[in-house]
Amino acid sequence: MSEIIWSDTEQEIAQTAFQKAYQRETSTLIEHIKEQSGQITVLDDIWQMHDYLSARRHQIDGKYDYRYTSLIFVFAQLLKEGWLKLEDLNGLEKDKLAKIAALSRM
Amino acid sequence: MSEIIWSDTEQEIAQTAFQKAYQRETSTLIEHIKEQSGQITVLDDIWQMHDYLSARRHQIDGKYDYRYTSLIFVFAQLLKEGWLKLEDLNGLEKDKLAKIAALSRM
Repeated sequence: MSEIIWSDTEQEIAQTAFQKAYQRETSTLIEHIKEQSGQITVLDDIWQMHDYLSARRHQIDGKYDYRYTSLIFVFAQLLKEGWLKLEDLNGLEKDKLAKIAALSRM
Repeated sequence: MSEIIWSDTEQEIAQTAFQKAYQRETSTLIEHIKEQSGQITVLDDIWQMHDYLSARRHQIDGKYDYRYTSLIFVFAQLLKEGWLKLEDLNGLEKDKLAKIAALSRM
């Protein structure tokens, strides 16, 4: 996978899709936290939110890894989780799309 | 300090004061978080809140140490930070009150 070549056009498409997924996921997180914080009544709710944020931060930091050597896997993961749709990747080589789609079903 | 004796009455006073301070500080934290979360707009605000909660959790866990060997120091700290007033400790021996008050000014 490390030898996959991304043309200039594909790089542009990849960057846009990557940003789109990041935007969607982090906006959803923001909304979720705003909603959750409205329901905080006791200290334990705060610590639960803290635990949740620790986990999400670790997960988001690890997942959004923009390197062309890992991008196939990153996109497959984002597809699986629903932050990307195949349409967002329109314009990538058929072979890449097939790999991403296949990996996303695993 | 480890040999200070707390009478039954003093233990009751200490427990009540300790709980009162904890209640005040954690309620204030809850209010602060609810307020802050209303102002969240970008992901960085979330991570800042996460950092803040990590620090506060560590600090609160460490500070509220109910052991009679550390209680003079704990009360001095709580007094210094404003979570306790000297009146909350009314009924403790004069000597203890003097130590707590002196330490709180350091």
